[in-house]
Amino acid sequence: MTRRERALAVADGRTLLSADPATVSWLTGHVPEIEWGPSPFSAPPVVVVDGSGRVRIVVSEDETDSLLPDVEPVTFPGFAVEEVDRHSRAIELALSLIDGRVAGEPLSLPGALARIELDDVGVELQRARAAKDRDELDAIRSAIAIADIGQAAARSAFVPGVSELELWTLVRAAMESAVGGRLPVLADLVTGPRTADVGGAPGDRRAEHDDLLLVDLVPRIGAYWGDSCAAVAHGDAPGIVRDAHANALAALEAAKTAVAPGVRAGEVDATARALVDYPHHTGHGVGLTVHEQPRIVPGNDQILEEGMVIALEPGCYGEGWGVRVEQVVVVTEDGCDVLSGHDIGLYSTT
Amino acid sequence: MTRRERALAVADGRTLLSADPATVSWLTGHVPEIEWGPSPFSAPPVVVVDGSGRVRIVVSEDETDSLLPDVEPVTFPGFAVEEVDRHSRAIELALSLIDGRVAGEPLSLPGALARIELDDVGVELQRARAAKDRDELDAIRSAIAIADIGQAAARSAFVPGVSELELWTLVRAAMESAVGGRLPVLADLVTGPRTADVGGAPGDRRAEHDDLLLVDLVPRIGAYWGDSCAAVAHGDAPGIVRDAHANALAALEAAKTAVAPGVRAGEVDATARALVDYPHHTGHGVGLTVHEQPRIVPGNDQILEEGMVIALEPGCYGEGWGVRVEQVVVVTEDGCDVLSGHDIGLYSTT
Repeated sequence: MTRRERALAVADGRTLLSADPATVSWLTGHVPEIEWGPSPFSAPPVVVVDGSGRVRIVVSEDETDSLLPDVEPVTFPGFAVEEVDRHSRAIELALSLIDGRVAGEPLSLPGALARIELDDVGVELQRARAAKDRDELDAIRSAIAIADIGQAAARSAFVPGVSELELWTLVRAAMESAVGGRLPVLADLVTGPRTADVGGAPGDRRAEHDDLLLVDLVPRIGAYWGDSCAAVAHGDAPGIVRDAHANALAALEAAKTAVAPGVRAGEVDATARALVDYPHHTGHGVGLTVHEQPRIVPGNDQILEEGMVIALEPGCYGEGWGVRVEQVVVVTEDGCDVLSGHDIGLYSTT
Repeated sequence: MTRRERALAVADGRTLLSADPATVSWLTGHVPEIEWGPSPFSAPPVVVVDGSGRVRIVVSEDETDSLLPDVEPVTFPGFAVEEVDRHSRAIELALSLIDGRVAGEPLSLPGALARIELDDVGVELQRARAAKDRDELDAIRSAIAIADIGQAAARSAFVPGVSELELWTLVRAAMESAVGGRLPVLADLVTGPRTADVGGAPGDRRAEHDDLLLVDLVPRIGAYWGDSCAAVAHGDAPGIVRDAHANALAALEAAKTAVAPGVRAGEVDATARALVDYPHHTGHGVGLTVHEQPRIVPGNDQILEEGMVIALEPGCYGEGWGVRVEQVVVVTEDGCDVLSGHDIGLYSTT
């Protein structure tokens, strides 16, 4: 089943209505601009799918470039000198497209759209987004390939004296240069004792001899995110850190071995968590958001299916140190394939 | 009047309710994370101000650090392994804080919050946000100082052979290094014929001899944005470009001379637009968003007041070239002060 078919199955004859950015992108191809907050020349787009599968998006006239070929844009003005109430206009337009019974995501809907009687199918849509179509997998592979490039740049530039911000600049430049343009990136990039904090933004700290680097890179290409994490040691890492890293690697391998269609997400979590202790999830789906279903957490009974894309990231954190290894996998017919290509060794393996 | 007092004047005894990110930050000090889209471990915060001036924010427990001292956080869970419906929880908590008649911004409110009967005071709040308090001015000055650093980096690195992305990396690194951390930046950075497009994101194009650079930098420090633009020529710019740049500078000077309390925004626009032609606004307020009231556009009858912060940016665009000059000013008792410190010459003046 394609995602369009899965969405129609959730809608079950009702008109589907959502302003959740992930759902909108999923059904229309819309790529939201996110790096500088809400645009004063736009309003959140709204997707409306009728029972026959016709997909319409209420969107700024400036944001139709990335739409899938069969999606019909219903536009309001974009950048303009004149005063335009784009939010009201978007709501009016969306209201005009709605007919019959409605199912959707009420928590995403602003103003008068939130007053429509509708059946909440938010959870169903989140689950339906977990298994990816071929074009979505291609997009995620592209984002992961860019994360790989960033990871390589971080690893090769991690030497005593370099600051976290300097590393960050090199990493980002390597990724943006490979893409040929700016790209949004969520990142942890911390060194030394800061690695004990699980993550954090790059700052002024300069790397020292026998230091650790923890670098988690989550770049977006188009509407889809990649993910990746590695811990890198310079010089001599203490035995406890080497052991912890080996345990994290073993947990990652065990988790990958556990992933297969029919397995519950919580079972994968338990498999990894039996080998090493960490205060966070074992993993999560990745795609139109940086962290989505299936969440690999204790007790999650969601059953894994072919086409789901999962980032697995066991770690271990102690007094003044922390390590984590992360790879992204796609669930296959009988197991999973690893999409990540970056070096996850504590020391470089190449 | 402080912004709190202006907000209470708009509320006029009613409970004030908003989930507009700018209004929330304005009244609470909340700094939204924006660079990677909506967080899966958060939900949009909601501000509730009761008639006595008590300010409460419904917010993730992970996002209370930046709040103003007298703001009371009412929190829902942040980062967690467990499954939590933060959006529903935020709405429930906000509903529990509401009492009596309500005024607010209905277009910003999700789900059940949008079903509350309330008086729409969105336009009044936007206007009330235009004049800045002292702490807001300090924040904007800091952001503009960072923009100045970015402008200087762009200007000094603009030589034949450098790519737009390489310039961008240097510019961003200079700004992030000055801050000691990552910061969100909206930017135009285009060279050569791309300058005719008014703006655009940096790409692969490499600068050539006798080329133009158009660089518009809008960094955010805390919750407040700065703004800045310059056009820089390498080598010999054609006479038409030099003339256009001189006209844009003259228009900027005329606009600054026109800015004073009691003047209508549209009059400032007309003053600048009489000297040079451009397909965009003459300027705009800047603060909690990158473009806000007072918009300096034809016919805007909003009256300028002391404390308003306005970016003025006349430009001129022809076949294969474009120039723009921008400075930010604050309206004073009898005119305006320029907050920008960057070089706006077509050729460096230092």
